[in-house]
Amino acid sequence: MDTIVIIGYIAGTLTTISFIPQVVRAWKLKETRDLSLAMLILFAAGILLWTCYGFWTESLPIIAANVITFILILVLLGLKIRYK
Amino acid sequence: MDTIVIIGYIAGTLTTISFIPQVVRAWKLKETRDLSLAMLILFAAGILLWTCYGFWTESLPIIAANVITFILILVLLGLKIRYK
Repeated sequence: MDTIVIIGYIAGTLTTISFIPQVVRAWKLKETRDLSLAMLILFAAGILLWTCYGFWTESLPIIAANVITFILILVLLGLKIRYK
Repeated sequence: MDTIVIIGYIAGTLTTISFIPQVVRAWKLKETRDLSLAMLILFAAGILLWTCYGFWTESLPIIAANVITFILILVLLGLKIRYK
């Protein structure tokens, strides 16, 4: 595997798993007041487009990272709406 | 300009500017309790690698988006450390 593809996978893994501690924190604290709703909505929209970009450019690291990130952001959005 | 480059720029603009309302919120509330420090650190590390990926693949949307995002995440990290 090319070095750059490996770097892409590590980058995607880091930015993707970074949202796991955020989901856990929101879940545990049952508080999301300090999370910006605008941030979550804009970020989700951007991640959807990054996924398109990944498919178009056939970049598997970009596709994989963004699909999982999108799911985590949807969970955060749900928690934000539930625990205002 | 290719359609896909435009989509990449819109995607990058959305995921990048999404952190502006988050910075504003942390700044105004002077509270970052609900923000996960682990999220910010992992995300910053990932964004640095995405920037490398962008340079290597000569993808200007990826470079531009990630450099600005990195700066905004550093500001958020600063606010997180200041307002625990």
